[in-house]
Amino acid sequence: MSTFGLIEYKDASAEVRAIYDDIMATRKTDWINNFWKALAHDPPTLKRTWKDIKQIMAPGALDPLTKEMIYVAVSVTNQCNYCIASHTVSAQKKGMTDAMFKELMSVVGMANETNRLSAGYQIEIDEQFKK
Amino acid sequence: MSTFGLIEYKDASAEVRAIYDDIMATRKTDWINNFWKALAHDPPTLKRTWKDIKQIMAPGALDPLTKEMIYVAVSVTNQCNYCIASHTVSAQKKGMTDAMFKELMSVVGMANETNRLSAGYQIEIDEQFKK
Amino acid sequence: MSTFGLIEYKDASAEVRAIYDDIMATRKTDWINNFWKALAHDPPTLKRTWKDIKQIMAPGALDPLTKEMIYVAVSVTNQCNYCIASHTVSAQKKGMTDAMFKELMSVVGMANETNRLSAGYQIEIDEQFKK
Amino acid sequence: MSTFGLIEYKDASAEVRAIYDDIMATRKTDWINNFWKALAHDPPTLKRTWKDIKQIMAPGALDPLTKEMIYVAVSVTNQCNYCIASHTVSAQKKGMTDAMFKELMSVVGMANETNRLSAGYQIEIDEQFKK
Amino acid sequence: MSTFGLIEYKDASAEVRAIYDDIMATRKTDWINNFWKALAHDPPTLKRTWKDIKQIMAPGALDPLTKEMIYVAVSVTNQCNYCIASHTVSAQKKGMTDAMFKELMSVVGMANETNRLSAGYQIEIDEQFKK
Amino acid sequence: MSTFGLIEYKDASAEVRAIYDDIMATRKTDWINNFWKALAHDPPTLKRTWKDIKQIMAPGALDPLTKEMIYVAVSVTNQCNYCIASHTVSAQKKGMTDAMFKELMSVVGMANETNRLSAGYQIEIDEQFKK
Repeated sequence: MSTFGLIEYKDASAEVRAIYDDIMATRKTDWINNFWKALAHDPPTLKRTWKDIKQIMAPGALDPLTKEMIYVAVSVTNQCNYCIASHTVSAQKKGMTDAMFKELMSVVGMANETNRLSAGYQIEIDEQFKK
Repeated sequence: MSTFGLIEYKDASAEVRAIYDDIMATRKTDWINNFWKALAHDPPTLKRTWKDIKQIMAPGALDPLTKEMIYVAVSVTNQCNYCIASHTVSAQKKGMTDAMFKELMSVVGMANETNRLSAGYQIEIDEQFKK
Repeated sequence: MSTFGLIEYKDASAEVRAIYDDIMATRKTDWINNFWKALAHDPPTLKRTWKDIKQIMAPGALDPLTKEMIYVAVSVTNQCNYCIASHTVSAQKKGMTDAMFKELMSVVGMANETNRLSAGYQIEIDEQFKK
Repeated sequence: MSTFGLIEYKDASAEVRAIYDDIMATRKTDWINNFWKALAHDPPTLKRTWKDIKQIMAPGALDPLTKEMIYVAVSVTNQCNYCIASHTVSAQKKGMTDAMFKELMSVVGMANETNRLSAGYQIEIDEQFKK
Repeated sequence: MSTFGLIEYKDASAEVRAIYDDIMATRKTDWINNFWKALAHDPPTLKRTWKDIKQIMAPGALDPLTKEMIYVAVSVTNQCNYCIASHTVSAQKKGMTDAMFKELMSVVGMANETNRLSAGYQIEIDEQFKK
Repeated sequence: MSTFGLIEYKDASAEVRAIYDDIMATRKTDWINNFWKALAHDPPTLKRTWKDIKQIMAPGALDPLTKEMIYVAVSVTNQCNYCIASHTVSAQKKGMTDAMFKELMSVVGMANETNRLSAGYQIEIDEQFKK
């Protein structure tokens, strides 16, 4: 339903189209997903969010696939259905195999479990972990 | 403070010591961190949790460093201070450089932000993401 | 689907109808949304929840629109789809413009991001913030 | 403890000092809080985060105090202790009275409660809320 | 540190003392914990919160110990340190044995794990669960 | 939609069928819910998760119904729709009455509220709760 609806390329302003073009060029795709079409109602947020993501997700000390899997890990932890669907596909396009996805899920599940055991048992941080 | 206190190696039962030994051997360290010393009050949970973690964190389709960084990503998203401290050190021991940590934090921050933009704008999942 | 189904006005007990009437009178609407129709299966909870919300959301040191936007901020952070949908409409009815909604989303997104950066970098609270 | 420690003004690079200067000028303060001193280890993140916050928190359709209270609402929902401490003080400096803080907490508490009642009763979104 | 400090019995107004008295009588203790002393700065919230908790935590279809353990489960899931500490002690006073606490933690950990596996694998709700 | 689809009994490997059989025997049902059919794409995770759940949810210091309600409490707190739907039905099959469900929801809602009040007021843990 999206609060304000979605802005398609043909209906977008020149400012928004320029960002859509950059998204498609950067991602080597020929379509824009709903996230950006919804944000397009707020061009400053569209611009800022895309610029940030483009910078953050670019190859660096971590490769793009690892970054995409971290994105999935966070989205799963937060139960964000849209983000799980979109970033799982993005990770697959960047080379995530089924085997990698399955291990990713196992780690995310385990971490969510031990995060609670640590909290529940009220465990203090070891001196060795404080540098 | 830890709800039941911590069980040191010298005070541990043979059953618990065997797990402590396996943890130290697997991780190539000579000490046990508080998480395990607290869980040791519940040997079945200690045993199950260690066995699961050992299986899940072993090298596979994903390398151990990537898995450890995913663990950090989840722990940061959940605001689990103990887990952030311990898994950051574990990741560093497995080769995470400062540059990698910084990019990891950027991705985690960004994902937490766009998770909420997606929810807040009530964005529907694109057909393309539904396979 | 709602666990117990929804109780419509015409099927409600006198006790439940009295609360429905008060909700409609207070909110100046002529219908009851599903949240209350579901809670109506548990009259003490229906009564307590409505009484609390009526007290908390009334004009005070904060105006009703600000309160409603805070409600949206929490609901978005928690990924509660029902609450996002209902409180966004409530905020709009109380005067939230599209421009206000967009800024609200930006702040919520940003706060969710820096909450994790603070946790991830294990930042200690400044003495100046401890009063 | 902060993962990398804190970078004080006197030890900062010219690039970092320029941001510190802008933070102090924008906020009309003569000190930098730990959040920025920790992020300073990663100048691109420091720069991006400050630029985003400066844009997002500026006066607009919502006034700066309202934005700051929304920041507190999110931080409380996420149990981010650092952010609660720092943004509560920021909100107080922007004019949040004790009475406003108390109402803010009441709304945040209530929203967190009804978010779960909505989820727990599996309540469907009303047609009226779908536009 | 508590935002407004704590209000001790001797410094409390008659209105606040009456609630403190009821808390101590209901719980059969001779002291008030910090949660209430902090809320006492906002008497309407103190009164409403205590009244709600008194009603909700009273014996009913669920016994008080079960309710207290559910409280712990939620608090652990949310990483609320204060609530974990206080409700664990409350549960112990109501009869929670060490064995019960350990099983409680196991269930909470497991539920947090499978919650993420369900989300991550994007699993649809079975028709059988929709009644 | 489930990321990899669902594996029906007739299409399952002998290894997976053995687990399906054990699930149905343990739960005294004649069907397998989607959670397991999705996990079946990753037999080690299917096996480990079922083994853990079977151990953890078995009668012990806590009875199975109490455990199932704790599972619901966590799932509701995490807004996991699949888990809420499935574990609510499981709890009902183990004897949860409507009255019990309603009280469960009240406690979960209240705990989520006071978790935030504790965090928001920055309340320190009482010495009495530190053992």
